[in-house]
Amino acid sequence: MNKQDQNKPIPKATAKRIPLYFRYLRTLQESGVIRIKSKEFSQMIQVPSATIRRDFSHFGELGRSGYGYDVPYLIEVFSEILSTQVEKRIALVGVGNLGKALLKNNFRRNENLTIMCAFDSDPEVIGTCINCVEIKNIHDFSEVAKKEGITAVITTVPSKHAQQAIDTIVASGITAILNFAPDRVKVPEHVNIQYIDLTTELQTLIYFDEHVSQVNKLGLAKKA
Amino acid sequence: MNKQDQNKPIPKATAKRIPLYFRYLRTLQESGVIRIKSKEFSQMIQVPSATIRRDFSHFGELGRSGYGYDVPYLIEVFSEILSTQVEKRIALVGVGNLGKALLKNNFRRNENLTIMCAFDSDPEVIGTCINCVEIKNIHDFSEVAKKEGITAVITTVPSKHAQQAIDTIVASGITAILNFAPDRVKVPEHVNIQYIDLTTELQTLIYFDEHVSQVNKLGLAKKA
Repeated sequence: MNKQDQNKPIPKATAKRIPLYFRYLRTLQESGVIRIKSKEFSQMIQVPSATIRRDFSHFGELGRSGYGYDVPYLIEVFSEILSTQVEKRIALVGVGNLGKALLKNNFRRNENLTIMCAFDSDPEVIGTCINCVEIKNIHDFSEVAKKEGITAVITTVPSKHAQQAIDTIVASGITAILNFAPDRVKVPEHVNIQYIDLTTELQTLIYFDEHVSQVNKLGLAKKA
Repeated sequence: MNKQDQNKPIPKATAKRIPLYFRYLRTLQESGVIRIKSKEFSQMIQVPSATIRRDFSHFGELGRSGYGYDVPYLIEVFSEILSTQVEKRIALVGVGNLGKALLKNNFRRNENLTIMCAFDSDPEVIGTCINCVEIKNIHDFSEVAKKEGITAVITTVPSKHAQQAIDTIVASGITAILNFAPDRVKVPEHVNIQYIDLTTELQTLIYFDEHVSQVNKLGLAKKA
């Protein structure tokens, strides 16, 4: 296999699209499609075909001109990159409204992602069960996380208490954290932290709708 | 005021950072800070100071060399850009676990963002109330959305039914949609749709933690 050079990391923007590519390729495979042209794939996933070709070029020769891409082969390559054959054991910290929703869903569409354990500091919540996961005391985080073989953490702890929760997580040796509290926290350089901020996403969307896309809308109105 | 040229849209990457800048500037103001240097601001929000300076340059002369940025003035400029003085009336479509969590929180930290109404197709859910918002039948979307003056929609409808829900939303004239179902849907060109995909975010984070940052970790290990 002419795969990615392990010593040469791929760009972050490309890495972000791999799970999307992978999901659609699996859908194609389930529908019995074994090859697809980059133009068709582009229309399906709404990513420009030049971007797809450039992304795929990081992983060697994945397609042939005029033939398109071999679906099972692409799935094999991306599956290895995403290590979807390996179970990712995740801990959830903060079992408020959003935490409860994440536990109830528990990545059911992705069999290799599993929230194994959940933590909170509220005595009313500790000891209860959601979707067969028992909520444990955050003070026991390090011990439970080690026992469960946790490699990544999702935290939904509000900004006010987020730094304290993150410190506990980092102290246990975890280096991958997805943080739903928008305020920036301090972590050592070797820790990977990713923020998801729903309010920012919504504000950006509304800003674009109100300002940037006015040009297009006026253009459309003129044509009509 | 030397503000942004209304006819020249700012880059999307810059627009995405404005809500973050705005939130931190307000925190500074609440703490009595009236000016800040780009280096200090950079450390606080964990965005490179060159990026901050480049972003700010789109809005005219916002700072002076050696003096730093004027906090109240920046707030005024960004507030106008984000129109935070104007209430944004939002509809929620899909009241499952995630939808319920969004309704319970209802952007309480952002007084100008409000989920005014919510819709589902499940007869067991229709007519119930969450956080004083009544869940209505999706068939009544257009009528209710017009009456409530809705300008943006958040949908948490699962991928399988997402296209149908989006078609209903688009038919009512709404042009700003935040979609939590990761599969791409078809919308007319003038509609702004933004996807939030928690699984992809998590997979990308884990990929980076396992591959890309190994180089840093090995570097750290050597130094230790």
